[in-house]
Amino acid sequence: MSDLIYSSKIPEPTLRRLPWYLSYVKLLKTHGDKIVSSTQIAKKIGVSASQIAKDLSYVDVSGKTRVGYDIDDLISVLETFLGFTNTHTAVVFGVGSLGAALLSDSGLEQFGLKIIGGFDVNPTIVNNSIGGIPVFHSSDFMEWNKQMKASIGILTVPPGVAQEVAEYMIRGGVKAIWNFTPFRIRVPEGIVLQNTSLYAHLAVMFNRLNG
Amino acid sequence: MSDLIYSSKIPEPTLRRLPWYLSYVKLLKTHGDKIVSSTQIAKKIGVSASQIAKDLSYVDVSGKTRVGYDIDDLISVLETFLGFTNTHTAVVFGVGSLGAALLSDSGLEQFGLKIIGGFDVNPTIVNNSIGGIPVFHSSDFMEWNKQMKASIGILTVPPGVAQEVAEYMIRGGVKAIWNFTPFRIRVPEGIVLQNTSLYAHLAVMFNRLNG
Repeated sequence: MSDLIYSSKIPEPTLRRLPWYLSYVKLLKTHGDKIVSSTQIAKKIGVSASQIAKDLSYVDVSGKTRVGYDIDDLISVLETFLGFTNTHTAVVFGVGSLGAALLSDSGLEQFGLKIIGGFDVNPTIVNNSIGGIPVFHSSDFMEWNKQMKASIGILTVPPGVAQEVAEYMIRGGVKAIWNFTPFRIRVPEGIVLQNTSLYAHLAVMFNRLNG
Repeated sequence: MSDLIYSSKIPEPTLRRLPWYLSYVKLLKTHGDKIVSSTQIAKKIGVSASQIAKDLSYVDVSGKTRVGYDIDDLISVLETFLGFTNTHTAVVFGVGSLGAALLSDSGLEQFGLKIIGGFDVNPTIVNNSIGGIPVFHSSDFMEWNKQMKASIGILTVPPGVAQEVAEYMIRGGVKAIWNFTPFRIRVPEGIVLQNTSLYAHLAVMFNRLNG
Protein backbone atom coordinates (compact mmCIF):
# COMPACT_ATOMS: atom_id res chain seq x y z
CA MET A 1 0.00 0.00 0.00
CA SER A 2 1.26 3.42 -0.93
CA ASP A 3 1.71 6.21 1.52
CA LEU A 4 -1.29 8.36 1.63
CA ILE A 5 -1.30 12.06 1.03
CA TYR A 6 -4.56 13.77 1.83
CA SER A 7 -4.71 17.07 0.06
CA SER A 8 -7.56 19.47 0.59
CA LYS A 9 -6.67 20.91 -2.81
CA ILE A 10 -8.14 18.06 -4.82
CA PRO A 11 -11.08 19.49 -6.78
CA GLU A 12 -14.56 18.27 -5.93
CA PRO A 13 -15.34 17.12 -9.51
CA THR A 14 -12.26 14.89 -9.35
CA LEU A 15 -13.37 13.51 -6.00
CA ARG A 16 -16.76 12.73 -7.47
CA ARG A 17 -15.26 10.92 -10.47
CA LEU A 18 -12.78 8.77 -8.54
CA PRO A 19 -15.53 6.45 -7.21
CA TRP A 20 -16.63 5.81 -10.81
CA TYR A 21 -13.14 4.65 -11.72
CA LEU A 22 -12.97 2.56 -8.57
CA SER A 23 -16.28 0.92 -9.36
CA TYR A 24 -15.20 0.11 -12.91
CA VAL A 25 -11.78 -1.30 -12.05
CA LYS A 26 -13.34 -3.45 -9.32
CA LEU A 27 -15.60 -4.87 -12.03
CA LEU A 28 -12.57 -5.54 -14.27
CA LYS A 29 -10.93 -7.37 -11.37
CA THR A 30 -13.91 -9.72 -11.06
CA HIS A 31 -13.32 -10.52 -14.76
CA GLY A 32 -9.76 -11.51 -13.95
CA ASP A 33 -8.07 -8.45 -15.53
CA LYS A 34 -4.72 -7.32 -14.09
CA ILE A 35 -3.94 -4.06 -15.92
CA VAL A 36 -6.09 -1.15 -17.08
CA SER A 37 -5.24 1.91 -19.15
CA SER A 38 -6.87 5.33 -18.84
CA THR A 39 -8.03 4.92 -22.46
CA GLN A 40 -9.85 1.74 -21.50
CA ILE A 41 -11.55 3.42 -18.53
CA ALA A 42 -12.41 6.41 -20.74
CA LYS A 43 -14.29 4.23 -23.24
CA LYS A 44 -16.57 2.81 -20.56
CA ILE A 45 -17.06 5.82 -18.31
CA GLY A 46 -17.51 8.64 -20.79
CA VAL A 47 -14.71 10.80 -19.35
CA SER A 48 -11.69 11.64 -21.51
CA ALA A 49 -8.50 9.63 -21.03
CA SER A 50 -6.53 12.79 -20.33
CA GLN A 51 -9.02 13.83 -17.62
CA ILE A 52 -8.77 10.39 -16.05
CA ALA A 53 -4.97 10.52 -16.06
CA LYS A 54 -5.15 13.98 -14.50
CA ASP A 55 -7.65 12.84 -11.85
CA LEU A 56 -5.47 9.84 -11.01
CA SER A 57 -2.43 12.08 -10.68
CA TYR A 58 -3.96 13.33 -7.40
CA VAL A 59 -3.75 9.87 -5.88
CA ASP A 60 -0.45 8.19 -5.34
CA VAL A 61 -0.60 5.55 -8.03
CA SER A 62 1.85 5.34 -10.88
CA GLY A 63 0.74 4.19 -14.30
CA LYS A 64 3.37 2.73 -16.60
CA THR A 65 3.50 4.61 -19.91
CA ARG A 66 1.87 2.60 -22.69
CA VAL A 67 0.96 -0.18 -20.26
CA GLY A 68 -1.48 1.18 -17.72
CA TYR A 69 -2.30 0.84 -14.05
CA ASP A 70 -2.02 -2.31 -11.99
CA ILE A 71 -5.65 -3.04 -11.06
CA ASP A 72 -4.99 -4.33 -7.54
CA ASP A 73 -2.82 -1.29 -6.80
CA LEU A 74 -5.38 1.09 -8.21
CA ILE A 75 -8.24 -0.40 -6.17
CA SER A 76 -6.25 -0.35 -2.98
CA VAL A 77 -4.97 3.20 -3.45
CA LEU A 78 -8.38 4.56 -4.48
CA GLU A 79 -10.24 2.90 -1.60
CA THR A 80 -7.74 4.28 0.87
CA PHE A 81 -7.60 7.72 -0.72
CA LEU A 82 -11.38 8.01 -0.78
CA GLY A 83 -11.57 7.15 2.89
CA PHE A 84 -13.58 3.97 2.34
CA THR A 85 -11.12 1.83 4.32
CA ASN A 86 -11.28 4.03 7.43
CA THR A 87 -14.24 3.96 9.77
CA HIS A 88 -15.99 7.29 10.24
CA THR A 89 -18.63 7.25 12.93
CA ALA A 90 -21.93 8.99 12.36
CA VAL A 91 -25.26 9.76 13.98
CA VAL A 92 -28.64 10.23 12.32
CA PHE A 93 -30.82 13.09 13.56
CA GLY A 94 -34.46 12.61 12.63
CA VAL A 95 -35.53 8.97 12.59
CA GLY A 96 -38.50 9.40 10.30
CA SER A 97 -38.92 7.59 7.08
CA LEU A 98 -35.59 8.48 5.43
CA GLY A 99 -33.64 8.50 8.69
CA ALA A 100 -34.86 5.03 9.57
CA ALA A 101 -34.01 3.87 6.05
CA LEU A 102 -30.44 5.10 6.47
CA LEU A 103 -30.15 3.36 9.84
CA SER A 104 -31.22 0.14 8.10
CA ASP A 105 -28.77 0.56 5.21
CA SER A 106 -25.81 -1.51 6.35
CA GLY A 107 -24.22 -0.99 2.93
CA LEU A 108 -22.78 2.38 3.92
CA GLU A 109 -20.41 0.66 6.31
CA GLN A 110 -18.53 -0.94 3.41
CA PHE A 111 -17.73 2.60 2.33
CA GLY A 112 -16.38 3.65 5.68
CA LEU A 113 -19.50 5.15 7.26
CA LYS A 114 -20.56 3.52 10.51
CA ILE A 115 -23.80 4.85 11.97
CA ILE A 116 -23.71 4.34 15.73
CA GLY A 117 -26.85 6.09 16.91
CA GLY A 118 -30.12 7.66 15.91
CA PHE A 119 -31.66 10.68 17.64
CA ASP A 120 -35.23 11.87 17.65
CA VAL A 121 -37.75 13.61 19.90
CA ASN A 122 -40.71 11.35 19.11
CA PRO A 123 -41.39 9.17 22.22
CA THR A 124 -42.67 6.28 20.07
CA ILE A 125 -39.27 6.07 18.34
CA VAL A 126 -36.87 6.92 21.18
CA ASN A 127 -35.40 3.95 23.09
CA ASN A 128 -36.05 1.55 20.25
CA SER A 129 -33.44 0.27 17.85
CA ILE A 130 -33.51 0.10 14.07
CA GLY A 131 -31.23 -2.18 12.11
CA GLY A 132 -29.52 -2.95 15.41
CA ILE A 133 -28.72 0.72 16.01
CA PRO A 134 -30.11 2.36 19.17
CA VAL A 135 -32.28 5.46 18.96
CA PHE A 136 -31.96 8.03 21.75
CA HIS A 137 -33.71 11.22 22.69
CA SER A 138 -32.11 14.22 20.98
CA SER A 139 -31.59 15.95 24.31
CA ASP A 140 -29.19 13.16 25.33
CA PHE A 141 -26.82 13.78 22.43
CA MET A 142 -24.44 16.26 24.10
CA GLU A 143 -23.62 13.95 26.96
CA TRP A 144 -23.61 10.83 24.80
CA ASN A 145 -21.22 12.24 22.22
CA LYS A 146 -18.61 13.19 24.81
CA GLN A 147 -18.01 9.44 25.02
CA MET A 148 -18.90 8.33 21.52
CA LYS A 149 -17.27 11.14 19.55
CA ALA A 150 -19.27 10.66 16.37
CA SER A 151 -17.74 12.96 13.78
CA ILE A 152 -20.49 13.01 11.14
CA GLY A 153 -24.07 14.17 11.66
CA ILE A 154 -26.64 12.94 9.16
CA LEU A 155 -29.53 15.37 8.98
CA THR A 156 -32.95 13.91 8.14
CA VAL A 157 -35.19 16.11 10.28
CA PRO A 158 -38.13 18.18 8.98
CA PRO A 159 -36.80 21.19 7.01
CA GLY A 160 -38.23 23.66 9.54
CA VAL A 161 -35.78 22.55 12.24
CA ALA A 162 -32.85 21.65 9.98
CA GLN A 163 -30.75 24.71 10.81
CA GLU A 164 -31.17 24.51 14.58
CA VAL A 165 -30.56 20.76 14.69
CA ALA A 166 -27.41 21.16 12.58
CA GLU A 167 -26.11 23.77 15.04
CA TYR A 168 -26.96 21.48 17.95
CA MET A 169 -25.02 18.59 16.40
CA ILE A 170 -22.03 20.87 15.81
CA ARG A 171 -22.12 22.02 19.45
CA GLY A 172 -22.12 18.32 20.33
CA GLY A 173 -18.90 17.80 18.42
CA VAL A 174 -19.66 16.66 14.89
CA LYS A 175 -17.23 17.95 12.28
CA ALA A 176 -19.34 17.27 9.19
CA ILE A 177 -23.03 17.51 8.35
CA TRP A 178 -24.56 15.30 5.67
CA ASN A 179 -27.73 17.21 4.89
CA PHE A 180 -30.55 15.17 3.31
CA THR A 181 -33.21 17.81 3.94
CA PRO A 182 -34.29 20.15 1.15
CA PHE A 183 -33.42 23.04 3.46
CA ARG A 184 -30.26 24.95 2.67
CA ILE A 185 -28.45 25.08 5.99
CA ARG A 186 -25.40 27.20 6.85
CA VAL A 187 -22.46 25.93 8.86
CA PRO A 188 -19.51 27.73 10.46
CA GLU A 189 -16.13 27.72 8.78
CA GLY A 190 -14.22 24.52 9.43
CA ILE A 191 -17.34 22.36 9.43
CA VAL A 192 -17.81 20.18 6.35
CA LEU A 193 -21.22 20.34 4.70
CA GLN A 194 -22.42 17.84 2.12
CA ASN A 195 -25.90 18.27 0.66
CA THR A 196 -27.65 15.27 -0.83
CA SER A 197 -31.08 16.37 -1.87
CA LEU A 198 -33.05 13.41 -3.16
CA TYR A 199 -35.94 15.80 -3.80
CA ALA A 200 -33.87 18.06 -6.03
CA HIS A 201 -32.81 14.98 -7.99
CA LEU A 202 -36.45 13.94 -8.27
CA ALA A 203 -37.37 17.41 -9.52
CA VAL A 204 -34.72 17.25 -12.24
CA MET A 205 -35.86 13.77 -13.29
CA PHE A 206 -39.56 14.69 -13.39
CA ASN A 207 -38.84 17.81 -15.42
CA ARG A 208 -36.72 15.91 -17.93
CA LEU A 209 -39.40 13.21 -18.19
CA ASN A 210 -41.98 15.79 -19.14
CA GLY A 211 -39.64 17.87 -21.29
CA MET B 1 -53.49 27.46 -9.94
CA SER B 2 -51.56 28.83 -12.87
CA ASP B 3 -51.30 27.10 -16.17
CA LEU B 4 -48.25 24.99 -16.29
CA ILE B 5 -45.60 25.24 -18.92
CA TYR B 6 -43.04 22.47 -18.82
CA SER B 7 -39.95 23.56 -20.63
CA SER B 8 -37.06 21.24 -21.20
CA LYS B 9 -34.88 24.34 -21.50
CA ILE B 10 -34.84 25.13 -17.80
CA PRO B 11 -31.23 24.73 -16.67
CA GLU B 12 -30.40 21.95 -14.24
CA PRO B 13 -28.83 24.30 -11.64
CA THR B 14 -32.12 26.22 -11.56
CA LEU B 15 -34.06 22.99 -11.14
CA ARG B 16 -31.82 22.05 -8.25
CA ARG B 17 -32.30 25.41 -6.54
CA LEU B 18 -36.08 25.59 -6.86
CA PRO B 19 -36.64 22.95 -4.12
CA TRP B 20 -34.54 25.10 -1.75
CA TYR B 21 -36.84 28.07 -2.32
CA LEU B 22 -39.89 25.84 -1.93
CA SER B 23 -38.59 24.45 1.34
CA TYR B 24 -37.89 27.92 2.70
CA VAL B 25 -41.22 29.49 1.72
CA LYS B 26 -43.07 26.51 3.20
CA LEU B 27 -41.26 27.27 6.43
CA LEU B 28 -42.29 30.95 6.21
CA LYS B 29 -45.87 29.82 5.72
CA THR B 30 -45.79 27.84 8.97
CA HIS B 31 -44.73 31.11 10.65
CA GLY B 32 -47.83 32.79 9.26
CA ASP B 33 -46.09 34.90 6.61
CA LYS B 34 -48.05 35.82 3.47
CA ILE B 35 -45.52 37.56 1.21
CA VAL B 36 -41.84 36.97 0.50
CA SER B 37 -39.33 38.93 -1.56
CA SER B 38 -36.41 37.49 -3.46
CA THR B 39 -34.12 39.59 -1.24
CA GLN B 40 -35.57 37.87 1.82
CA ILE B 41 -35.03 34.41 0.30
CA ALA B 42 -31.52 35.45 -0.75
CA LYS B 43 -30.51 36.30 2.81
CA LYS B 44 -31.46 32.87 4.11
CA ILE B 45 -30.44 30.65 1.22
CA GLY B 46 -27.12 32.13 0.17
CA VAL B 47 -28.12 32.66 -3.46
CA SER B 48 -28.23 36.21 -4.90
CA ALA B 49 -31.62 37.92 -5.17
CA SER B 50 -31.14 38.44 -8.90
CA GLN B 51 -30.41 34.72 -9.40
CA ILE B 52 -33.54 33.86 -7.43
CA ALA B 53 -35.67 36.26 -9.50
CA LYS B 54 -34.18 34.73 -12.65
CA ASP B 55 -34.81 31.17 -11.45
CA LEU B 56 -38.40 32.04 -10.56
CA SER B 57 -38.92 33.58 -13.99
CA TYR B 58 -38.93 29.99 -15.36
CA VAL B 59 -42.01 29.15 -13.35
CA ASP B 60 -45.27 30.88 -13.95
CA VAL B 61 -45.44 33.02 -10.85
CA SER B 62 -45.52 36.79 -10.89
CA GLY B 63 -43.88 38.82 -8.19
CA LYS B 64 -45.13 42.33 -7.59
CA THR B 65 -42.31 44.85 -7.89
CA ARG B 66 -41.20 46.11 -4.49
CA VAL B 67 -43.70 43.81 -2.76
CA GLY B 68 -42.74 40.23 -3.45
CA TYR B 69 -44.35 36.89 -4.10
CA ASP B 70 -47.56 35.64 -2.57
CA ILE B 71 -46.37 32.66 -0.49
CA ASP B 72 -49.39 30.42 -1.11
CA ASP B 73 -49.12 31.03 -4.86
CA LEU B 74 -45.40 30.40 -4.86
CA ILE B 75 -45.73 27.10 -2.97
CA SER B 76 -48.50 25.88 -5.21
CA VAL B 77 -46.76 26.84 -8.45
CA LEU B 78 -43.39 25.43 -7.36
CA GLU B 79 -44.84 22.13 -6.17
CA THR B 80 -46.69 21.71 -9.43
CA PHE B 81 -43.79 22.84 -11.58
CA LEU B 82 -41.36 20.50 -9.82
CA GLY B 83 -43.69 17.56 -10.41
CA PHE B 84 -44.25 16.90 -6.70
CA THR B 85 -48.05 17.01 -7.03
CA ASN B 86 -48.16 14.39 -9.79
CA THR B 87 -47.67 10.73 -9.06
CA HIS B 88 -44.79 9.09 -10.92
CA THR B 89 -44.67 5.33 -10.50
CA ALA B 90 -41.35 3.62 -9.95
CA VAL B 91 -39.78 0.22 -9.42
CA VAL B 92 -36.65 -0.63 -7.45
CA PHE B 93 -34.22 -3.11 -8.99
CA GLY B 94 -31.93 -4.66 -6.42
CA VAL B 95 -33.57 -5.11 -3.03
CA GLY B 96 -30.38 -5.21 -1.00
CA SER B 97 -29.63 -2.87 1.83
CA LEU B 98 -30.15 0.45 0.00
CA GLY B 99 -32.97 -0.86 -2.21
CA ALA B 100 -34.89 -2.13 0.81
CA ALA B 101 -34.30 1.19 2.54
CA LEU B 102 -35.83 3.06 -0.41
CA LEU B 103 -38.83 0.69 -0.42
CA SER B 104 -39.33 1.54 3.26
CA ASP B 105 -39.01 5.30 2.72
CA SER B 106 -42.61 6.40 2.38
CA GLY B 107 -41.47 10.03 2.42
CA LEU B 108 -40.68 9.99 -1.30
CA GLU B 109 -44.38 9.71 -2.06
CA GLN B 110 -44.99 13.22 -0.73
CA PHE B 111 -42.67 14.39 -3.49
CA GLY B 112 -44.53 12.56 -6.23
CA LEU B 113 -42.57 9.31 -6.35
CA LYS B 114 -44.64 6.19 -5.72
CA ILE B 115 -42.66 2.96 -5.63
CA ILE B 116 -44.99 0.12 -6.64
CA GLY B 117 -42.67 -2.87 -6.84
CA GLY B 118 -39.26 -4.23 -5.99
CA PHE B 119 -37.35 -6.69 -8.18
CA ASP B 120 -34.52 -8.99 -7.25
CA VAL B 121 -33.11 -12.42 -8.14
CA ASN B 122 -32.40 -13.55 -4.57
CA PRO B 123 -34.95 -16.25 -3.66
CA THR B 124 -34.94 -15.26 0.02
CA ILE B 125 -36.16 -11.77 -0.94
CA VAL B 126 -38.48 -12.50 -3.87
CA ASN B 127 -42.19 -12.92 -3.01
CA ASN B 128 -41.88 -10.99 0.22
CA SER B 129 -42.95 -7.44 0.73
CA ILE B 130 -41.08 -4.54 2.29
CA GLY B 131 -42.84 -1.47 3.62
CA GLY B 132 -46.02 -2.90 2.11
CA ILE B 133 -44.49 -3.04 -1.38
CA PRO B 134 -44.27 -6.47 -3.07
CA VAL B 135 -40.95 -7.83 -4.29
CA PHE B 136 -40.95 -9.92 -7.45
CA HIS B 137 -38.41 -11.93 -9.39
CA SER B 138 -36.57 -9.75 -11.90
CA SER B 139 -37.51 -12.09 -14.73
CA ASP B 140 -41.18 -11.24 -14.17
CA PHE B 141 -40.68 -7.52 -14.83
CA MET B 142 -41.34 -7.45 -18.59
CA GLU B 143 -44.76 -9.03 -18.28
CA TRP B 144 -45.62 -7.18 -15.06
CA ASN B 145 -44.78 -3.77 -16.43
CA LYS B 146 -47.06 -4.18 -19.46
CA GLN B 147 -49.87 -3.78 -16.95
CA MET B 148 -48.25 -1.55 -14.35
CA LYS B 149 -46.42 0.86 -16.65
CA ALA B 150 -43.93 2.10 -14.07
CA SER B 151 -42.03 4.95 -15.70
CA ILE B 152 -39.04 5.26 -13.36
CA GLY B 153 -36.50 2.54 -12.61
CA ILE B 154 -34.48 2.93 -9.42
CA LEU B 155 -31.17 1.13 -9.75
CA THR B 156 -29.68 -0.28 -6.55
CA VAL B 157 -28.08 -3.47 -7.89
CA PRO B 158 -24.40 -4.41 -7.50
CA PRO B 159 -22.27 -2.21 -9.80
CA GLY B 160 -21.18 -5.18 -11.90
CA VAL B 161 -24.68 -5.69 -13.29
CA ALA B 162 -25.82 -2.05 -13.27
CA GLN B 163 -25.53 -1.54 -17.04
CA GLU B 164 -27.35 -4.70 -18.04
CA VAL B 165 -30.14 -4.22 -15.48
CA ALA B 166 -30.63 -0.63 -16.65
CA GLU B 167 -31.01 -1.85 -20.23
CA TYR B 168 -33.44 -4.53 -19.09
CA MET B 169 -35.60 -1.96 -17.28
CA ILE B 170 -35.60 0.25 -20.37
CA ARG B 171 -36.69 -2.68 -22.56
CA GLY B 172 -39.48 -3.17 -20.01
CA GLY B 173 -40.69 0.36 -20.57
CA VAL B 174 -39.16 2.67 -17.99
CA LYS B 175 -38.42 6.16 -19.27
CA ALA B 176 -36.03 7.27 -16.54
CA ILE B 177 -33.30 5.59 -14.53
CA TRP B 178 -32.42 6.83 -11.05
CA ASN B 179 -28.96 5.35 -10.59
CA PHE B 180 -27.80 4.91 -7.00
CA THR B 181 -24.90 2.61 -7.91
CA PRO B 182 -21.37 3.98 -8.14
CA PHE B 183 -21.24 2.60 -11.69
CA ARG B 184 -21.50 5.09 -14.50
CA ILE B 185 -24.18 3.63 -16.74
CA ARG B 186 -25.05 4.76 -20.27
CA VAL B 187 -28.60 5.13 -21.54
CA PRO B 188 -30.00 5.66 -25.05
CA GLU B 189 -31.11 9.09 -26.17
CA GLY B 190 -34.59 9.94 -24.90
CA ILE B 191 -34.12 8.09 -21.62
CA VAL B 192 -33.63 10.29 -18.56
CA LEU B 193 -30.69 9.42 -16.33
CA GLN B 194 -30.25 10.78 -12.82
CA ASN B 195 -27.19 9.73 -10.84
CA THR B 196 -27.29 9.94 -7.06
CA SER B 197 -24.06 8.53 -5.78
CA LEU B 198 -24.12 8.44 -2.01
CA TYR B 199 -20.59 6.99 -2.14
CA ALA B 200 -19.24 9.91 -4.13
CA HIS B 201 -20.78 12.27 -1.58
CA LEU B 202 -19.18 10.25 1.21
CA ALA B 203 -15.82 10.45 -0.56
CA VAL B 204 -16.06 14.24 -0.79
CA MET B 205 -17.05 14.49 2.86
CA PHE B 206 -14.25 12.22 4.10
CA ASN B 207 -11.67 14.07 2.04
CA ARG B 208 -12.77 17.46 3.35
CA LEU B 209 -12.80 16.12 6.92
CA ASN B 210 -9.18 15.08 6.60
CA GLY B 211 -8.08 18.13 4.62
